[in-house]
Amino acid sequence: MVVELVSVGTELLLGNIVNTNTQYLAEQCASLGLSMYHQVVVGDNWERLAEVVQTALRRSDVVILTGGLGPTEDDLTKEVCAEVMEMPLREDSHTRKRIEDYLKNGIFKKIPDNNWKQAQVPEGAIVLDNLNGTAPGLILEKEGKTVVLLPGPPSELIPLFQEQVSPYLKKKQPEVLRSQMIKICGVGESQVEAEILDLIDGQTNPTIATYAKTGEVHLRVTARAKSEEEAKRMVKPVVKEIKSRFRDSVYSAREEETLEMAVVKLLQKYELTVTTAESCTGGLLAGRLVNVPGASEVFREGFITYANKAKRKYLDVSKSTLKKYGAVSPETAREMAIGGVFAADCDVCVAVTGIAGPEGGTEEKPVGLVYIATYMKEKVTVKKYQFKGNREKVREMAVVRALDLLRRSILENYR
Amino acid sequence: MVVELVSVGTELLLGNIVNTNTQYLAEQCASLGLSMYHQVVVGDNWERLAEVVQTALRRSDVVILTGGLGPTEDDLTKEVCAEVMEMPLREDSHTRKRIEDYLKNGIFKKIPDNNWKQAQVPEGAIVLDNLNGTAPGLILEKEGKTVVLLPGPPSELIPLFQEQVSPYLKKKQPEVLRSQMIKICGVGESQVEAEILDLIDGQTNPTIATYAKTGEVHLRVTARAKSEEEAKRMVKPVVKEIKSRFRDSVYSAREEETLEMAVVKLLQKYELTVTTAESCTGGLLAGRLVNVPGASEVFREGFITYANKAKRKYLDVSKSTLKKYGAVSPETAREMAIGGVFAADCDVCVAVTGIAGPEGGTEEKPVGLVYIATYMKEKVTVKKYQFKGNREKVREMAVVRALDLLRRSILENYR
Repeated sequence: MVVELVSVGTELLLGNIVNTNTQYLAEQCASLGLSMYHQVVVGDNWERLAEVVQTALRRSDVVILTGGLGPTEDDLTKEVCAEVMEMPLREDSHTRKRIEDYLKNGIFKKIPDNNWKQAQVPEGAIVLDNLNGTAPGLILEKEGKTVVLLPGPPSELIPLFQEQVSPYLKKKQPEVLRSQMIKICGVGESQVEAEILDLIDGQTNPTIATYAKTGEVHLRVTARAKSEEEAKRMVKPVVKEIKSRFRDSVYSAREEETLEMAVVKLLQKYELTVTTAESCTGGLLAGRLVNVPGASEVFREGFITYANKAKRKYLDVSKSTLKKYGAVSPETAREMAIGGVFAADCDVCVAVTGIAGPEGGTEEKPVGLVYIATYMKEKVTVKKYQFKGNREKVREMAVVRALDLLRRSILENYR
Repeated sequence: MVVELVSVGTELLLGNIVNTNTQYLAEQCASLGLSMYHQVVVGDNWERLAEVVQTALRRSDVVILTGGLGPTEDDLTKEVCAEVMEMPLREDSHTRKRIEDYLKNGIFKKIPDNNWKQAQVPEGAIVLDNLNGTAPGLILEKEGKTVVLLPGPPSELIPLFQEQVSPYLKKKQPEVLRSQMIKICGVGESQVEAEILDLIDGQTNPTIATYAKTGEVHLRVTARAKSEEEAKRMVKPVVKEIKSRFRDSVYSAREEETLEMAVVKLLQKYELTVTTAESCTGGLLAGRLVNVPGASEVFREGFITYANKAKRKYLDVSKSTLKKYGAVSPETAREMAIGGVFAADCDVCVAVTGIAGPEGGTEEKPVGLVYIATYMKEKVTVKKYQFKGNREKVREMAVVRALDLLRRSILENYR
């Protein structure tokens, strides 16, 4: 069964808002095992909207439209769909009563006349009561095709979808879809792809999808089957094979687990406390660690030592090291990591020093040069990186690689 | 001139990510005075993508495609467009060299063969060098129609659009469009709209567009005219009127100036050095300040004092204050700000302490409660905030408001 999403609204075409409804509905449909090949955004214009709906009905089984169900003259999603589906509008007394009840206790002394437009329903449509607004959801069925209409505000759309549309779609769907995520850090996208080319080639079921994130690659293995168990059984060997190829580069196999979550989990597992010593990343590394709920168990304090003087004062980096090798050097990174552990009295420190640009680069030490060091169990690891891109990108990549080096160092020293 | 956006990527159809690229491009196109009637998302599938591009070319003058330019076999945006536009692919030696240089100093010992796919360019296309990735941007022109191809990662797409595509589109546009941005912080979106309702009502030329950002509202005043001078003349009085209504809440009138840039500029202007004392934001505040090139002039070190012990050790917050009022209190925020100035030996400190959640909230101190304090010229300012949303959102809002309070405090004390 193929679903297509149509978002109606000029505010989307003007870029005033981000289309989060489409992301929500797409994710929900994917989890129901529905296929989706198109998402379309169109404005409140009769001809264009009618054409988009007709095209969608030609190539998809279910068309979900969001937005344009309001009480104003601009709103014409329902009117257009009623015409396309040849299901003329008539007033629905149940919906009129519900709107009356909904608005009675609201801000209006007298309900504005244009609200009654929302009580008009295409003949034969299934009406979905909206508990969070006036516009009802609607399901229009004809000749094996289904049109679902939902109001645009997420606070109305989400409950309507979850409570009424999702169960409706589930009943229509014979197949089950099951997918498993594999998250990889420290290997480039093309290299990941090259290493599993034999698995991707000629894949049909399960499929492997590749997603490039900043400094990470995510793989999703997805199987379709008649039952949940069968789909799981199909996914399992593929996941196992991929994991065996990337080993320690795989930091998680859970959809919702971020790199910083994996790091915090590892710290918790080995009962370690961590500190951060940051120069060019200036707090972003600690900021990401702290984004994990419960980070306080493993993280108590961090150092932002942007100036050389601060590196000496808090991390006890020696004056001669800074003078001889400079702030951006393996020697300084090393002393920052060691100094961090002692200053914060904790088990582990990760230190970052680099040239984020746009100024400050030289031929010998170009913009993007970053040294990352970890110190734990009296052992230092220092790595050199050369990142590309603007200041923001260099700093972002440095944070990802620092988290990854921390993760790998813990595995090496404590596993 | 009508523009259509086509986003290519299965991850969008599966709802793995929100389509922020489309919002960005739609906003940019609107600001260039271009009309937009359709936005489409389609997967990495040859037939469907070809059909979408053909449809888009029929009804629009410029089609901007994003995504699907990676090195993997899935990626076929360029290949499909080359076929549809009948501009066969050939290797571009300049691009090959650029990719080589880009990857040379990276993580690869040997550049994977599939990367050379990205050096293939449709014959006659304009190549846009991508400084933040391997895939070049491309402009394909034929018979009055234009196809623009941009890589999907925002860190690559945004610079390419701003620096190369935007000037290109501007030249194609017969009318001159002149817009001026007004960036407001510390006033809610509905309040901003209420205060300029009389200006928005019945506007035609210039127009005022409202964009809600995290903790900020941006207003764009845009005029269309025959000449640059005329358009400027039309924009000016409207901008002046809006500025007079929001006064110090306006932090910038420049498109590219972020809140942290405005803060750093202010610090530079009054020759002040700043430090940060962060609890719940855990480094994010300093991280944003340091994102401004040249931040080292005003920022040398920052404190991440997540645990109470760290607040005492580095910021000299008194044991009794922490015991009597707790870590999330105006008293602690105040002492953190004062302690920061003395510990870092600088002019100004901004301190943040709060409950980001999801755990740790009580009836008296719910999740989202944040105190922000500034200290300068021996004067403390403390503000209480109650933010809505999840942990990430609370922390993000706290950072924006901390930057804003710092900005307002400097204006108050030094202007």
